[in-house]
Amino acid sequence: MPSDNDTRREEAERLVRAANTRFYRAFESLQVEQIDEVWSHDDSVRCIHPGWQCLRGWTAVRKSWEELFRNTRYMEFNVTDVDVWVDVSIAAVFCHENIVTFREGKVVRTVMLATNLFGNFDNRWLMILHHGSPVLGPVEESSGG
Amino acid sequence: MPSDNDTRREEAERLVRAANTRFYRAFESLQVEQIDEVWSHDDSVRCIHPGWQCLRGWTAVRKSWEELFRNTRYMEFNVTDVDVWVDVSIAAVFCHENIVTFREGKVVRTVMLATNLFGNFDNRWLMILHHGSPVLGPVEESSGG
Repeated sequence: MPSDNDTRREEAERLVRAANTRFYRAFESLQVEQIDEVWSHDDSVRCIHPGWQCLRGWTAVRKSWEELFRNTRYMEFNVTDVDVWVDVSIAAVFCHENIVTFREGKVVRTVMLATNLFGNFDNRWLMILHHGSPVLGPVEESSGG
Repeated sequence: MPSDNDTRREEAERLVRAANTRFYRAFESLQVEQIDEVWSHDDSVRCIHPGWQCLRGWTAVRKSWEELFRNTRYMEFNVTDVDVWVDVSIAAVFCHENIVTFREGKVVRTVMLATNLFGNFDNRWLMILHHGSPVLGPVEESSGG
């Protein structure tokens, strides 16, 4: 029989996975108002878009999403290879972002790697760090999940 | 007067910062035996060297450090802009890696961004994920720390 601790941990992990999924649905929406819903809004948040320098604090982070969305017509995320570490007040997710987008009328498929941190705000898991990075070499076959 | 909780948190943060520093001293040593000391050795560890695909599990991760060190003569890390999030069983660090190395007889300076995760193993903080990534655009002046 699972202990209360196991049950709490599984429930927390489920919530963190859901928060991670919500982030990618917000990303796909290309609407900054949806990004507002999934991030914490304080000065300690950090965001590293692939290849960009680190953006610090909610004002700078939000502005970057506005710019990104202004220059993007379509993005689709198939998130695989998800690893989750859950604690009491913070949680971390590592995942592969299999991205479909369009450039100059052509379908472009890319893979980015992301480490996402979430903070527990009264049982709402909100993003406090997003670190995306490009794979510059060959990509191993995804094992799913 | 600081509460017991504040004191515990400060002490944990101090230990996590020390673990992060130890990782970069191990990196500079170019000796895999020193890397052994600062990482957890289980299947759940993940390592993303800048631009590489994700390496999973200690066997693959350790092998990558051996390869890296075999092909490296000198590396110096000046770690700045350190952000720390500490919880009970996991902690996260984000930092700028200001790197000095030599290539073809010339001093080369680069900046990488890193998110490092640590697990608490009986009050020893060991690395469980290292996610390094390149800055492909211009780098903002570091504010130190």
